[in-house]
Amino acid sequence: MTKEKIAIIGGAGELGFGLALRWAKAGEDVCIGSRDAAKAEEAAARIKTAVPDATIAGFENVQAASGASVVVIAVPFSAQAGILKTIKSAVKQAILVDASVPLAAEVGGRPTRMLGVWEGSAAQQAAGLVPGVPVVSAFHNVSAEMLHDLTLTLDCDILICGDEAAAKERLSALVKLIPGLRPLDAGPLEMSRVVESMTALMISLNRRYKTHHSGIRITGLPM
Amino acid sequence: MTKEKIAIIGGAGELGFGLALRWAKAGEDVCIGSRDAAKAEEAAARIKTAVPDATIAGFENVQAASGASVVVIAVPFSAQAGILKTIKSAVKQAILVDASVPLAAEVGGRPTRMLGVWEGSAAQQAAGLVPGVPVVSAFHNVSAEMLHDLTLTLDCDILICGDEAAAKERLSALVKLIPGLRPLDAGPLEMSRVVESMTALMISLNRRYKTHHSGIRITGLPM
Repeated sequence: MTKEKIAIIGGAGELGFGLALRWAKAGEDVCIGSRDAAKAEEAAARIKTAVPDATIAGFENVQAASGASVVVIAVPFSAQAGILKTIKSAVKQAILVDASVPLAAEVGGRPTRMLGVWEGSAAQQAAGLVPGVPVVSAFHNVSAEMLHDLTLTLDCDILICGDEAAAKERLSALVKLIPGLRPLDAGPLEMSRVVESMTALMISLNRRYKTHHSGIRITGLPM
Repeated sequence: MTKEKIAIIGGAGELGFGLALRWAKAGEDVCIGSRDAAKAEEAAARIKTAVPDATIAGFENVQAASGASVVVIAVPFSAQAGILKTIKSAVKQAILVDASVPLAAEVGGRPTRMLGVWEGSAAQQAAGLVPGVPVVSAFHNVSAEMLHDLTLTLDCDILICGDEAAAKERLSALVKLIPGLRPLDAGPLEMSRVVESMTALMISLNRRYKTHHSGIRITGLPM
């Protein structure tokens, strides 16, 4: 168990809830944030039911982020910038983990197409909104449905992008706490352009092969 | 053994040679194309040495493409359009498999960054240059170094993008002839935007993890 205090903004959503559940199961101190405090509390209660000894709570986003050492942004891309502005002052001492993906579906387009983001990627947009805060990106390509089912063993590499090695290492340690996930250093934050767009590929593969469980593994690494 | 006749344009280059070697080993009829006929002949001779019963030949690009049923374009992106114009009339009865990747390194930039291609991807640019010819894209993410070494078993999924199912199926059958490669239908040709850019990710991972052998596997598919 690390000494991190994890806040998951959007923790009542699909991906966020899955991560909260898995980290709670691993014994981590997890706080769920939502724009609606009642939704956050309800999600926390569901996790407490699934994992009775979980250290879990639910609050409105700003309160959830306050005091956290790792703040995960797991919200729809269309909500990312607005939420970052509201929690900006609460994350000054934290590392920010952006998981948002600029799918064209966010603005009525297809989930197998991407929006162009001026900064190049959702993660780079996030970094511009919280200057001075180390930003990494991750969790774009893991199946939320598999995270939700504690009877399933995950089978996925987590590609982490970021410009600060220490922040990537802290997130890597947290990823390793979830069985079946392997953290990989994918490169600088700008590589998030590629990793985010791979979500569109995963959605395409899920549709063609009629599953919600696809993941990704990098082969051939000496590890 | 399929009834295809495979031409590999750029077959004296890293990726092209590896594919030619593996298909020759699988008993396929392979022709290597190069702008320099002598280079093509030399590459074919090397394959004949490695695989004595290979059906292999080497010619200048146009001659190599003529009569082939599957023409693989394995040239640097900066050469792709020019070569397609020269072989255009020779590939009218074939399916075209584009493997080129618009890395920024092609114009002096970094191999971990991508060029913006007007059509969206190298494969879409190719499709615009050979109207009426079925175009698929593939082989962006497989290690050329591993293809070259017949003692190594490959461990990689080949993500195939294209708008014509029949062409994707024909290429899939050829991919299955190479042990350790699994063909996957990644979606329409426009998905090549994502799959091509993953090459920059693989290069980034190869650098960080000090290997040339990285590949990709999609997990969680019901197959």
